[in-house]
Amino acid sequence: MRAVVYDAPFKVTVRPVPKPKILHPDDIIVKVTTTCICGSDLHMYEGRTAAESGIVFGHENMGLVDEVGSGVTLLKKGDRVVMPFNVACGRCLNCEEGKSAFCTHVNPGFVMPMGKYVAMGPYPGGQAEFVRVPFADFNALKLPSGTEHEEDFALLADIFPTGWHGVQLSGFRPGESIVVFGAGPVGLMAAYSAVLRGASEVYVVDRVPERLAKAKEIGCTPIDFSASDPVGQILKLRNGRVINLVPVGYQATTSDGKTEQPNVILEGLIRVVRPTGGLGIPGLYVPSDPGAPDSASAKGYISFPFGKLFEKGLTLGTGQCNVKTYNRYLRDLIIAGKAKPSFVVSHNLSLDEASDAYNKFDKRIDGYTKVLLHP
Amino acid sequence: MRAVVYDAPFKVTVRPVPKPKILHPDDIIVKVTTTCICGSDLHMYEGRTAAESGIVFGHENMGLVDEVGSGVTLLKKGDRVVMPFNVACGRCLNCEEGKSAFCTHVNPGFVMPMGKYVAMGPYPGGQAEFVRVPFADFNALKLPSGTEHEEDFALLADIFPTGWHGVQLSGFRPGESIVVFGAGPVGLMAAYSAVLRGASEVYVVDRVPERLAKAKEIGCTPIDFSASDPVGQILKLRNGRVINLVPVGYQATTSDGKTEQPNVILEGLIRVVRPTGGLGIPGLYVPSDPGAPDSASAKGYISFPFGKLFEKGLTLGTGQCNVKTYNRYLRDLIIAGKAKPSFVVSHNLSLDEASDAYNKFDKRIDGYTKVLLHP
Amino acid sequence: MRAVVYDAPFKVTVRPVPKPKILHPDDIIVKVTTTCICGSDLHMYEGRTAAESGIVFGHENMGLVDEVGSGVTLLKKGDRVVMPFNVACGRCLNCEEGKSAFCTHVNPGFVMPMGKYVAMGPYPGGQAEFVRVPFADFNALKLPSGTEHEEDFALLADIFPTGWHGVQLSGFRPGESIVVFGAGPVGLMAAYSAVLRGASEVYVVDRVPERLAKAKEIGCTPIDFSASDPVGQILKLRNGRVINLVPVGYQATTSDGKTEQPNVILEGLIRVVRPTGGLGIPGLYVPSDPGAPDSASAKGYISFPFGKLFEKGLTLGTGQCNVKTYNRYLRDLIIAGKAKPSFVVSHNLSLDEASDAYNKFDKRIDGYTKVLLHP
Amino acid sequence: MRAVVYDAPFKVTVRPVPKPKILHPDDIIVKVTTTCICGSDLHMYEGRTAAESGIVFGHENMGLVDEVGSGVTLLKKGDRVVMPFNVACGRCLNCEEGKSAFCTHVNPGFVMPMGKYVAMGPYPGGQAEFVRVPFADFNALKLPSGTEHEEDFALLADIFPTGWHGVQLSGFRPGESIVVFGAGPVGLMAAYSAVLRGASEVYVVDRVPERLAKAKEIGCTPIDFSASDPVGQILKLRNGRVINLVPVGYQATTSDGKTEQPNVILEGLIRVVRPTGGLGIPGLYVPSDPGAPDSASAKGYISFPFGKLFEKGLTLGTGQCNVKTYNRYLRDLIIAGKAKPSFVVSHNLSLDEASDAYNKFDKRIDGYTKVLLHP
Repeated sequence: MRAVVYDAPFKVTVRPVPKPKILHPDDIIVKVTTTCICGSDLHMYEGRTAAESGIVFGHENMGLVDEVGSGVTLLKKGDRVVMPFNVACGRCLNCEEGKSAFCTHVNPGFVMPMGKYVAMGPYPGGQAEFVRVPFADFNALKLPSGTEHEEDFALLADIFPTGWHGVQLSGFRPGESIVVFGAGPVGLMAAYSAVLRGASEVYVVDRVPERLAKAKEIGCTPIDFSASDPVGQILKLRNGRVINLVPVGYQATTSDGKTEQPNVILEGLIRVVRPTGGLGIPGLYVPSDPGAPDSASAKGYISFPFGKLFEKGLTLGTGQCNVKTYNRYLRDLIIAGKAKPSFVVSHNLSLDEASDAYNKFDKRIDGYTKVLLHP
Repeated sequence: MRAVVYDAPFKVTVRPVPKPKILHPDDIIVKVTTTCICGSDLHMYEGRTAAESGIVFGHENMGLVDEVGSGVTLLKKGDRVVMPFNVACGRCLNCEEGKSAFCTHVNPGFVMPMGKYVAMGPYPGGQAEFVRVPFADFNALKLPSGTEHEEDFALLADIFPTGWHGVQLSGFRPGESIVVFGAGPVGLMAAYSAVLRGASEVYVVDRVPERLAKAKEIGCTPIDFSASDPVGQILKLRNGRVINLVPVGYQATTSDGKTEQPNVILEGLIRVVRPTGGLGIPGLYVPSDPGAPDSASAKGYISFPFGKLFEKGLTLGTGQCNVKTYNRYLRDLIIAGKAKPSFVVSHNLSLDEASDAYNKFDKRIDGYTKVLLHP
Repeated sequence: MRAVVYDAPFKVTVRPVPKPKILHPDDIIVKVTTTCICGSDLHMYEGRTAAESGIVFGHENMGLVDEVGSGVTLLKKGDRVVMPFNVACGRCLNCEEGKSAFCTHVNPGFVMPMGKYVAMGPYPGGQAEFVRVPFADFNALKLPSGTEHEEDFALLADIFPTGWHGVQLSGFRPGESIVVFGAGPVGLMAAYSAVLRGASEVYVVDRVPERLAKAKEIGCTPIDFSASDPVGQILKLRNGRVINLVPVGYQATTSDGKTEQPNVILEGLIRVVRPTGGLGIPGLYVPSDPGAPDSASAKGYISFPFGKLFEKGLTLGTGQCNVKTYNRYLRDLIIAGKAKPSFVVSHNLSLDEASDAYNKFDKRIDGYTKVLLHP
Repeated sequence: MRAVVYDAPFKVTVRPVPKPKILHPDDIIVKVTTTCICGSDLHMYEGRTAAESGIVFGHENMGLVDEVGSGVTLLKKGDRVVMPFNVACGRCLNCEEGKSAFCTHVNPGFVMPMGKYVAMGPYPGGQAEFVRVPFADFNALKLPSGTEHEEDFALLADIFPTGWHGVQLSGFRPGESIVVFGAGPVGLMAAYSAVLRGASEVYVVDRVPERLAKAKEIGCTPIDFSASDPVGQILKLRNGRVINLVPVGYQATTSDGKTEQPNVILEGLIRVVRPTGGLGIPGLYVPSDPGAPDSASAKGYISFPFGKLFEKGLTLGTGQCNVKTYNRYLRDLIIAGKAKPSFVVSHNLSLDEASDAYNKFDKRIDGYTKVLLHP
């Protein structure tokens, strides 16, 4: 079969690789109908991770069940399914407690697995014609058969639940207001989730006009941090009401949009949030970042205004999304027509266009923001 | 000043009563701009409670601060405020824990106070030109000055928070589906709250076409229980997804809409809710009901399918709404233009039209469903 | 192999049955070292359930892994394990959300499975030399090898977690006081759990002197309901502090200890609990009870003081224990020497003594309260 | 009356000051029977805060109601009461939500009030014969009359609730294990709280033999960080079970016990805690620390291993203790004889001995760890 293979920094190619086989009774093989390119794929593409040459990318996958292992109980050939980006065993302490992003079986010793990165464990990615799904009853979420909502359902693999998770981590309650720093796909999903969950005010901070326009389109208040201090802008607009926050991650930049300054967002968060508020951090901060601007950041350190954090009595929720905690409910919102997250999708391409798509998405040109590949 | 006075079952008159005075340093006097007639006022009006002749009705009040006691710290003359229907001291164990509906100081021994009923404590009602508000810093919620959103803010005194509370009591989480039994003002507020909070499906059960039409208007699925078993109708429509429930109260009727059968709703709830689901019961079941159809109901007893409840592992949340837990946030939703609960208001009248309004509202004629009086 | 087989009401015999085999890749076979007789086994023994002749009893099982299916990932031959009384698949919505007592796969349509009763699903019981454990990675909790704490660990299958669950369902928080109605093994485990979790006052209501003595032994205040109204006794002792409650179930009796009156406990609960308190009901109320004192109870109906429940704003938590939610932590308390639940064990017997043990336990003679069988 | 007055760094004297008067209807005057010296008093004593010369110290106060304002509703002359260290109004958003440590009325703009420091607001301290208590119904907790449990009740003003709060902030659940870094009075109260709440393992990290001995005395496992890396020691002892944490604050030192290194504890926490665990930080990190070892710390900045925090999906709970959330329940534990926090008290002295006590406590000589003054 054909798949997207990582060769070296800034180089991926689509070429033949062996088709996956059932290796465990609880495995299934899924014929991929849609697979997304994620911002964290770009972290690997840029060589900012430990990803090794030769691996197959792709952790946002959906498709049709093609083969079923002898231990699989709830699924059958032909079922339409979407898989969480982070594979989990469903049998360890963390999985049992709904913390499937922290499966101790798939992530032994809790080191991010060599070469595969964002919790794909020791499994080849799904930017391919077929993908093996381990512990399939646990990892594959059933979808209504057919092709309806294909783009929306594809986003259940990662960014819709991840944005929703950020809102959850912040301690948000309906009626409160919230600020989202960064209007990339995940940031927009966080803002959209807050809108769906009954936020009174949702502020979205970014500098890219197209992103700010999207934020406005879904009922949020756009804040352009290239114009002036975003915290000042928000404090002027809001009315002393509760603020929770969802920042985007470690590649934050100063107002020029170029200079990386990992703590710039955390600074702002802590200034703008009201005492007793919460910060929800769904991604992505890494323990090791070869491409970081300074040695501390390279080791995942950030100089943090801890005194202010404590004085305000803030809570901080962090970590990758436990997709399974949310994906059923988000699926139901899509089926009921209450949610349509696909507004962030910029491109639908064939698998063979992947190489060009990575290049343009990484350069942020031609409006590449969220790309869906259809093998 | 003039006020709505209860004379006898089915008889209220508007006549002069003494203007309230500051009796405690933490009191304020509010000049009432809007006061609502509540379904529970009808319980008193119909003589189905211990309400005594001579009392002033009205526990859904808003207006302008007219006088301020020497202990009042956060309010000043002229502030626009709305008060929770259940007065609370803000100093007892329950108030401190956010259970202001269960203030032990205002409700000594936790008997519903003689003559005042629904938690107005020993205080005259607000269907009058002025009303005294005890523990004012705690009980009066500040509103933006002016007259904007007057109808919406008036509903912050009771039915909007009460409907929201019902959803909360059910254990509802965004993305889940929910059923509301009864589409009176509180039922519609519960359904509306579920919509605002991100429900995937909201089913509203009633038999009155106008009410079912309102439910549809706000994005819910209307279920006419006079047509056929509502549980059957819902089970046919929904797709095995989580169901939580919010019933309306003890005056439930069988499908003819006449015969009262207090347990008819609880029966349905327990049949339709999925195992591990929750029931939220914001009102109103009373410990004593002179007008009940049988002696057990008269003592507030209901024959309850407890075995089924246990087998399904359901949770049951009950009790009057702790208005203060929600009213700030609902106010913010109104200010931000995200919520407009006034769609349930059927009539805006002057105080002097109260007697006729009670009569028509009680008879459910001329479309009387939610009446606002403006002294 | 030999096993305890149900022949007819009041008759079980120990006789040979076929040894269980691996039927699914995720199965294991466990060599049983300890299996308990549960009060709910007596419900079956007395013919008060749908249990069929010929079934093997026993849902509180521990032992050593003897055979391992090809899909089993976390267990190996020789591991010492204890199983929850309620088998679960670990792959359905309820299991994924930690509601393993409500596994939709093992309990299709959520009818208690014919013949097997309390959530043993379609699986033979473990009062035998060997037992098959389905979905073994999910259902078998690993224990330290050896024979230490055998009696304590055996209680992790059901009554220790079930008692703990009752406390959890009541909404109990450390520092609060709590009342437990009924000091059978589960009631004592609930009281013991409250003590371990930092209750200020724990009242235990019963009429059997030995049970009340056990309650006192673990630091609780015994209340003898045969002496006088237990609610009155408690209200006299306590100091207006929060009360949560855990009742025992549907075979409650009036003060003579003979006449069954299913709602006698619920009545008392609602009278004694403070407004805003909670009721935790871990067991057991059944939807069908052939031996009930009246036709309503036979269908699982109870005449319930709903008005009072609502007036006090109580919450009600019900349902069988999701053992997996607690058993790891309770195991750790036992290993650390902080918990020793085996104080409730009255007899350690061989499997062959089962028939006599059922007879005496059912008659409540010779001090039979909690019997452990060792095949 | 006589009071403890701050003159200059390392200098306090006991001398006459004006007796407090009722200034607001909701005030009371309390005749102080016991007042404690707190570690945070030493922060002021050492001149590491903005405390001004001439202020009266003391925020851990209990005594008898001596005078009552006209608005006071629940208290009367003679009542025995203890006050939270952080005064609150009981009427603002944060107070209403149980966040009394973050009262917006008493702490306008949320700057720590000049000269008074730890949330004493604009109020003179209680290391004096009398103290004024504002919003008395809200701030004064009633105690049983008499003199019983005086030392234990005195600790309800701050350190017992603060330790308990640390455990709460960590997300601790009974049965889990926990590590407490620092065995000063607050650290020991946190460890004691975890024991009371049903922890399986409690590790207490310190270097002072007396403190480690106290930890062992209450059933914890002492870890001497001067012997070797405490994280290594704990990982060797524990058994892969859940770990939550409670660190002591910003004056942490390296293993020599002298060199301050504010992030040394946070480093260790993040290494030792299991993925999905929680950190509870009840105190004390300050936004400004003149005496800090470096300029970043002086501004309350800490270089923080954020990448690791995120990778493990940890939660962080911070902030001063909302004493009122816990003090009733801790009082009840003391009354019931279940808790006896006074084991940390090292000295009971008269008010006139304060100056010498501050000197010795600050130098950590003669075993000064927790000093109670009795005016």
